[in-house]
Amino acid sequence: MELLNVLKRLRQKPQGKIILIVFDGLGGIPREPGGPTELQSAKKPNLDALAREGFCGLLDNVLPGLTPGSGPAHLSLFGYDPLIFDIGRGLLGALGIGFPIQPGDLAVRVNFCTTDPRTGFVTDRRAGRIPTETNEKLVALLNARVRIPGCEVFVRTEKEHRACVVFRAPDLYDAIAETDPQSEGKEPPRLAAALDDRSAKAAAFAAEFARQAADILKGEHPANNLLMRGYARFEKIPLLTETYDMRFAAIATYPMYRGVANLVGMDILPDAGETIASEFACLEKHFADYDFFFLHIKKTDSYGEDGNWDAKVHVIEEADALLPRARALNPAVLCVTADHSTPCVLKAHSWHPVPVAVWAKWGRPDGVDEFSERACAGGALGRMRGIHLMPILVAHALGLEKYGA
Amino acid sequence: MELLNVLKRLRQKPQGKIILIVFDGLGGIPREPGGPTELQSAKKPNLDALAREGFCGLLDNVLPGLTPGSGPAHLSLFGYDPLIFDIGRGLLGALGIGFPIQPGDLAVRVNFCTTDPRTGFVTDRRAGRIPTETNEKLVALLNARVRIPGCEVFVRTEKEHRACVVFRAPDLYDAIAETDPQSEGKEPPRLAAALDDRSAKAAAFAAEFARQAADILKGEHPANNLLMRGYARFEKIPLLTETYDMRFAAIATYPMYRGVANLVGMDILPDAGETIASEFACLEKHFADYDFFFLHIKKTDSYGEDGNWDAKVHVIEEADALLPRARALNPAVLCVTADHSTPCVLKAHSWHPVPVAVWAKWGRPDGVDEFSERACAGGALGRMRGIHLMPILVAHALGLEKYGA
Repeated sequence: MELLNVLKRLRQKPQGKIILIVFDGLGGIPREPGGPTELQSAKKPNLDALAREGFCGLLDNVLPGLTPGSGPAHLSLFGYDPLIFDIGRGLLGALGIGFPIQPGDLAVRVNFCTTDPRTGFVTDRRAGRIPTETNEKLVALLNARVRIPGCEVFVRTEKEHRACVVFRAPDLYDAIAETDPQSEGKEPPRLAAALDDRSAKAAAFAAEFARQAADILKGEHPANNLLMRGYARFEKIPLLTETYDMRFAAIATYPMYRGVANLVGMDILPDAGETIASEFACLEKHFADYDFFFLHIKKTDSYGEDGNWDAKVHVIEEADALLPRARALNPAVLCVTADHSTPCVLKAHSWHPVPVAVWAKWGRPDGVDEFSERACAGGALGRMRGIHLMPILVAHALGLEKYGA
Repeated sequence: MELLNVLKRLRQKPQGKIILIVFDGLGGIPREPGGPTELQSAKKPNLDALAREGFCGLLDNVLPGLTPGSGPAHLSLFGYDPLIFDIGRGLLGALGIGFPIQPGDLAVRVNFCTTDPRTGFVTDRRAGRIPTETNEKLVALLNARVRIPGCEVFVRTEKEHRACVVFRAPDLYDAIAETDPQSEGKEPPRLAAALDDRSAKAAAFAAEFARQAADILKGEHPANNLLMRGYARFEKIPLLTETYDMRFAAIATYPMYRGVANLVGMDILPDAGETIASEFACLEKHFADYDFFFLHIKKTDSYGEDGNWDAKVHVIEEADALLPRARALNPAVLCVTADHSTPCVLKAHSWHPVPVAVWAKWGRPDGVDEFSERACAGGALGRMRGIHLMPILVAHALGLEKYGA
């Protein structure tokens, strides 16, 4: 909060535009001792040129050694300390399906499950992974029938057995016990009990929702009940547009990233399409209308999670080929980086710091001659917390006044 | 505290073992312009290989420019911010002699001294550095005769004129004036006066102890009195075993390092022996029983304090030759670093940051090809606070979950 307040005092109209390209899960590790990372094996002449003409570093988007989830990682890149701005799982779920979340809302992850009609015990925590169509029918049923006096309730389908529910009323806090017993055949869903005083009101709503849902679903099969976890209250975040004197746009193909961007005050461009090429086309189309563009490339992460080395490398090469179109727009600042590493070897997010390269009209090149984890380690940015990137980008567009006289 | 709480939330069972080798006082500086440091002059093919196959950096164990004492430096390496967890000298003294300190204890450094029987003035603050045997006799006398109602008192010999006293009672705080006048022939021992309200109780005990000790010792020569300083209350520290889902073992030949390790929840392996070779044998013997091993090498510091360049270099080479035995154990992570620098030129601890090299099965090598202060400065860890090392080591053994979704 402190850093954001300082920045807000220094805000001024920038003198050029900023493009921030985030390769999701870009960072990697070698698959054999002495071998290259995914990024090092890619042919990426344009990314290398950007690094050579710019300055580089490594970012820890939470803290050294901590593996960032997608939400915290993006908050960090947008300049918000994820240790202060803690976005819970329920909220990310709601953002992921594009639910228009409001400050004060309480978002909760829901699993449809199977309980034994006789004992009430949870026998399948995922109700046999019901098809999404079944999920949609059950959600429609719940939205039609659940009524909680004093509280608006929104149930939304995610996928298969997963859904989310949003409670809207004043003073809802999120220290509430999960109803998921985390075991099968041993106990019924647990009570959504308040874990502190101020969460008592929300816990009562959650418990009432669970009670009504069990009653509404009891005749269904196999999903005759539901479990709740990941309660998260949405605390208002200071908007980027309040911190900087700029207009922000997000270009992303996945709802969750659009959701996080929207949370911090970015406009979501509706015509990003489904491919990296369509995202670059969207950037070109709207380039006159905004000062800052966040362009999100998802598939590096997806293929990292799959352990698909060649496909991950290919995505990097595909984006590299498009990069000249961004440079041709003549921004003041063009930055490429990642939210976290997703090494193919681990098939998961990891703690390894991510490479960053910043090309800027008023930048100071540092002699790094390649965009790779190893080369960036020797760059002028050093190894830095991700939250410092945003002020650096804005400064290079002359969007921050002097601090003090 | 905040960081430890975050880590505790993310704890999970690791997938391999971690070995942390700390060369005490390893860091050095050149003895002539353009010359090598102690570490650079050592032949250390195994340390160099570790750096080459791993990733490196420089650590500040307190803050840049601050010279760490041994206690704070080790706390930092174990992940505790020494600016928050302040372990006073009295406590380090008690730990150094293996006293089983308990939370709430008040530990104080004692010097036997000589006072003029006529004036009461302190004439020799060290009582002519009496032999340790004399110290032991005086300590036995004090333990036999001192009686303070409502407070247990433990007096223990350190060495020569140095001893320590531990007061045990509820609510003992440590803002108490030192009785050592820091001058000779000018004034008597000062009063152990309370410097804040909550320390009044402990100050009364300390003053009463000083009064009884002066009376008990008055017929002795030359040590006919004592001085007290370095009051330190032991506040309970969150244990490593609470923060991480791991079992920790310490291998150290000196009591103080065993004491600090024990304080944070490590088991002290009893058969470390007296040499570096016996410490490595101990590591091998117990390797199956723990997840994390702290192996402490003392003599680099001792020879640094002596200004004995060749002997310090030799200790590095001796440990280097043993390093393959640690690698042969097939840990997930093997780290070598130091608590602080002890340059032979200065014959004392110094503020110079310490080199660190981490080899890890799931690591990302950074191109550093030598284990030296200079080469490590170019590594992927950058220049980092020492408190971040521990999460990095545990992350590389897959012992931390993702932060957020």
